[in-house]
Amino acid sequence: MNDGPLAAGIDLGGTFLKLALIDLGDGGRTVARETVPTAAGAGPAAVLGRMAEGLRRLADTVPGRAVASLGVGVPARVEPDGGRIFDAYNLPGGWEGTPIGTLLERETGLPTRVINDARAFAVAEHGLGAAAGAETALLATVGTGIGGAIVAHGRVVFGLGGQAGEIGHVIVRAGGPRCSCGNRGCAEPLASGPAIVAEAVRRVVQGFTTDLARLAGGDLGAITPELVARAADAGDAVATEVLTDAGSALGFALAGGIALVAPEVVAIGGGVAQADGVYWRAAEATARSHARVTEIDRIAFRPAALGYDAGVIGAALWGCAAE
Amino acid sequence: MNDGPLAAGIDLGGTFLKLALIDLGDGGRTVARETVPTAAGAGPAAVLGRMAEGLRRLADTVPGRAVASLGVGVPARVEPDGGRIFDAYNLPGGWEGTPIGTLLERETGLPTRVINDARAFAVAEHGLGAAAGAETALLATVGTGIGGAIVAHGRVVFGLGGQAGEIGHVIVRAGGPRCSCGNRGCAEPLASGPAIVAEAVRRVVQGFTTDLARLAGGDLGAITPELVARAADAGDAVATEVLTDAGSALGFALAGGIALVAPEVVAIGGGVAQADGVYWRAAEATARSHARVTEIDRIAFRPAALGYDAGVIGAALWGCAAE
Repeated sequence: MNDGPLAAGIDLGGTFLKLALIDLGDGGRTVARETVPTAAGAGPAAVLGRMAEGLRRLADTVPGRAVASLGVGVPARVEPDGGRIFDAYNLPGGWEGTPIGTLLERETGLPTRVINDARAFAVAEHGLGAAAGAETALLATVGTGIGGAIVAHGRVVFGLGGQAGEIGHVIVRAGGPRCSCGNRGCAEPLASGPAIVAEAVRRVVQGFTTDLARLAGGDLGAITPELVARAADAGDAVATEVLTDAGSALGFALAGGIALVAPEVVAIGGGVAQADGVYWRAAEATARSHARVTEIDRIAFRPAALGYDAGVIGAALWGCAAE
Repeated sequence: MNDGPLAAGIDLGGTFLKLALIDLGDGGRTVARETVPTAAGAGPAAVLGRMAEGLRRLADTVPGRAVASLGVGVPARVEPDGGRIFDAYNLPGGWEGTPIGTLLERETGLPTRVINDARAFAVAEHGLGAAAGAETALLATVGTGIGGAIVAHGRVVFGLGGQAGEIGHVIVRAGGPRCSCGNRGCAEPLASGPAIVAEAVRRVVQGFTTDLARLAGGDLGAITPELVARAADAGDAVATEVLTDAGSALGFALAGGIALVAPEVVAIGGGVAQADGVYWRAAEATARSHARVTEIDRIAFRPAALGYDAGVIGAALWGCAAE
């Protein structure tokens, strides 16, 4: 039984706010957690106030345990001074430049550090998950966007503006589809959840022979990456090809990352890249067959281990400087 | 005046063997140097013997100065135990698996460390050159092949098998030309010296309107990257396009590296990438315009500062563990 101080983490998502208290004296166990809607449209002040409230509620559930630090993961570029956030495309206006670290320190009284959410995912998976203890690693998380990170010399790499590891913006098809970053042919518009959905919908509309429309109850708006994966697992050839193409696009980006990082571990997470699914197999096979210089057989491909909690756990680890 | 011990470095190239003694107490100044033909075909024993002889000759030129360490840069993958070398495609047979570190320690009596030549280039440029002191950096050297390295957390990254940083093997055109690594569409077969020469020759043979054949004295075998660059500087449109396409291919690989490393500095060396040349401008412009996520304006593009001596200087630094 350990009763040292707890580390608080918050994962600020465009839709949900996840809060957790982590016990590092107990292997990083989550001792309290809660998920609430972000309602980001109410603006930073309201959202930050609700974060502080949420932390107080969580602390009340573990009486006698002190909370010593706060880390916040954000879908944005983070500047160190005051934890100012920029380019938060998934949050409505009003957040640009907000020093949420300084503001949350004031609201909560806790020393606070802010981190990009993909880097938080990496801090968690490298601290406690699929890449635990790796000297070099390449991480990717595939959902609505594609985030990532690299680990070198045993630590997550931040780089200029904390933006190292953006594997979703490695170009895999010169002149390819437009990306939200303004570029063309990045992995993200070819390999993300929306890319899978868009390509599946296109094929249904163009009359390809597929079961996707029936599975979606005739509602094209109901086609999700998960539904495409279910169809592929059931043998639907169109769904299989859509996922293979998307996974392969991720694989090309991973191959580039492997050539540059020569990682011991490639860890992939997020809802879209389920281990042993069609997408995963295409990504791994493409990466392995297109990274010839590196000793590819020594590289372990592993599913991210911490699931949807990686972001909030990584934020908590970052907040207490455990990585 | 400093008379501390000197660090010896050797750059084992396919054609030349460069040896140098470096004075770290004097800012890494080269106090003695020599270049001799490698004659690698004579086999490892003969070449290693000549390395030891060369070091003795160099030491004799600086009487009273002790040599304390030896570092050797090799065009190969290096395993730490004994400095065994593998995949040395630019050396003739007989070198595979040779523990040249152990053998040179025996021949010279100096503690010896072996390092891949591209990583040696990076150790030198990060220690004393274009990327000096950078926390994160991306380096490339363009010649017959394309080598590279990444710096993170203020140190050159080695990765599995010491093979991190292989920017020449980032894929920039899926299904593109075959690379010496066995893959297709790597930057190397599109952006290296031989790629430039091959494309220039093709255009001459296919009758494009260009001055290249005349500049080469009618001998297609005399077309070199330098000659193509001279033609481009003189306004030859074909030469300009060949260099622009090649530089642009490197730029796509650099853009991928920038997305992953978010480096403070991109340093480019080697005979092909002369600063302010057509090739360089295409590489930099392509990299800058295709790395949208990173704060590209904060990244400095710099020519490598140590020229052809970077390899031997980096080997010497590595040998004395100054990086």
